[in-house]
Amino acid sequence: MTPERIAAIRHLLGGWEADAIVLTNPANRRWATGFTSYATDSFSTDIVLISQNDVIILASGNNTAWAGGESPVATEIIAQSGLWPTAVVKIIDDHGWKSVAIEGDSVPYSLGQAVADGFSGTINFVSGVRDQVRVVKDPAEQANARQAALCTDQVFTEIAASGIVGKTEAEVARTITARLIEVSGGLGFDVIVASGPNAARPHHSPGDRVIQEREPIIIDMGARVNGYCGDLTRTLWFGPYDDRFESVYKAVLQSQIATKDALVAGRPAQEAALASEAALQDAGYGEYILHSVGHGVGFNIHEAPWIRKGNETLLEAGSVVTVEPGLYFPDWGGVRVEDVVILADGPCETITTAAKLMTV
Amino acid sequence: MTPERIAAIRHLLGGWEADAIVLTNPANRRWATGFTSYATDSFSTDIVLISQNDVIILASGNNTAWAGGESPVATEIIAQSGLWPTAVVKIIDDHGWKSVAIEGDSVPYSLGQAVADGFSGTINFVSGVRDQVRVVKDPAEQANARQAALCTDQVFTEIAASGIVGKTEAEVARTITARLIEVSGGLGFDVIVASGPNAARPHHSPGDRVIQEREPIIIDMGARVNGYCGDLTRTLWFGPYDDRFESVYKAVLQSQIATKDALVAGRPAQEAALASEAALQDAGYGEYILHSVGHGVGFNIHEAPWIRKGNETLLEAGSVVTVEPGLYFPDWGGVRVEDVVILADGPCETITTAAKLMTV
Repeated sequence: MTPERIAAIRHLLGGWEADAIVLTNPANRRWATGFTSYATDSFSTDIVLISQNDVIILASGNNTAWAGGESPVATEIIAQSGLWPTAVVKIIDDHGWKSVAIEGDSVPYSLGQAVADGFSGTINFVSGVRDQVRVVKDPAEQANARQAALCTDQVFTEIAASGIVGKTEAEVARTITARLIEVSGGLGFDVIVASGPNAARPHHSPGDRVIQEREPIIIDMGARVNGYCGDLTRTLWFGPYDDRFESVYKAVLQSQIATKDALVAGRPAQEAALASEAALQDAGYGEYILHSVGHGVGFNIHEAPWIRKGNETLLEAGSVVTVEPGLYFPDWGGVRVEDVVILADGPCETITTAAKLMTV
Repeated sequence: MTPERIAAIRHLLGGWEADAIVLTNPANRRWATGFTSYATDSFSTDIVLISQNDVIILASGNNTAWAGGESPVATEIIAQSGLWPTAVVKIIDDHGWKSVAIEGDSVPYSLGQAVADGFSGTINFVSGVRDQVRVVKDPAEQANARQAALCTDQVFTEIAASGIVGKTEAEVARTITARLIEVSGGLGFDVIVASGPNAARPHHSPGDRVIQEREPIIIDMGARVNGYCGDLTRTLWFGPYDDRFESVYKAVLQSQIATKDALVAGRPAQEAALASEAALQDAGYGEYILHSVGHGVGFNIHEAPWIRKGNETLLEAGSVVTVEPGLYFPDWGGVRVEDVVILADGPCETITTAAKLMTV
């Protein structure tokens, strides 16, 4: 797998006129080398350098055996002591590289500056490596995405049937989190449980509010399988529906269907966003939209392709994308319904299987 | 609480000759304002600006109500659209600030550069804000640390008695992780379970190895309570001890006692590191040390004070610190025993209560 990934990164070197790239984004490092190091999200000290001939992992002395075990693609594993910019400059000099790219959207300013100060050649701070090389998922990545969806759906189904009315949002979120980890081994992101008026906030932090009957309850949750995030949102309602809930829920479902229909490889990403919005406007709810309808999902919970207005990038087969229209009404609450799909040359494939409350 | 924290940050402005600081480190932002935003560890888009008169939270439109609810200390909450450096430059200009500090050890290079490019005044990229203001924990923080220790100890005790021989490291790590989240609501860091020869790696990633009798098993785990990490390591051994294990374990315990004795406010941090090393050397194991003996712990699992040789910083009462001597032998495994203590003007207080296998 990873030889193709290394090749994809090497392919970018020419555009930057760089002899090598210093990868500082942890998820990019893991994607390219297989070395899990500490995390996919937060900054850590293990660094990867890739040139046309080399794949060098710079790791703390305590991590070199770990890196070697996980990363057969590495040509060299170097034990680092002291600050990594010093070690990176030495590697650059030892290899005679004259121009080097470094991930400017990930490296902390002071560390990037330390590399620039220590190196006499050309430094090119580049952005968007992730969204250039990781936007299409290979079969192994798609398998992880499917497994993450399966685990997420399983835990959601179990929780939805467990009797959450009368519990606090925080209690339910904690149970979901623990079960996601038991079932999948990881967590895609902090679980959202937002009930009643709190459901009017797309990013509500679960709190002490007790969940009631006859109010919208938004649950947004994701497992993580081998680093790949699941992402599922369902809106629940216990007791007889009122007219408003039914009307809003069906408008969101219509929007989701229209969005999926427009998610076809070769079309501009924004077409799906426009389709989503048009459906919500047709239902009379255009002014209650608060966020874009979807995003790519992989090692990061939010990554390319971005399904939003103004993004004319053409979609590609193999991208894993969320479809999550939502409507939010201050004081009342909101409805969001989110599936994950895999893009194809024809209709996209929905890999989420968790049940919805209604059909349209 | 937070007014004192804001004052601590304002106190730094003079040293930087800055009218304001742009906080980009998520844990620093949370510590100063109470706004939990997305995370304590990874980079996110909500930004905090603090001047002598202002505490400004720049948040996405979907997060402003959340910020307001959590952060009474904020004087202004501004909804951000587009890239945050543009919004930060506008805030700086609107307030007439001529010199601004920004966290250079946290802000990604390209975003820091975008602020510098957009602002005509002086930008000072500063480092180490965290370790200047967060090294001493206030009573509320200490209470969270105690609770995190309690939850961690409870889950460890339960797991140690659950029969882990015959299970894989990964299975045990997953169970621990799920229980830490059920009990405390969070996770301090990725759980380490390292058995037999794998215990020779301080940062082993739990894998498919089946745990056996008569081998060292290192478990390193931590709950997270209101953002504050617990950190506990115990080395287990099932079946009769062999001489080597007993000898190594007791040397580590002796080292831990010697370290704690030297952890007294007013003394240089390295004294405790030297005491730890001397005890291990006296036992004849000096060459099997792989890491420093301790670190501060709070919103971040690793923060100041750093208990290592060469660090002459004077310890302060109220710091929460790990004490974790370890010895590692290739092919055989290792022993690490870690408690958390709170520093005081006299002897430190051990807040970890989990049992150890032996006494000395």
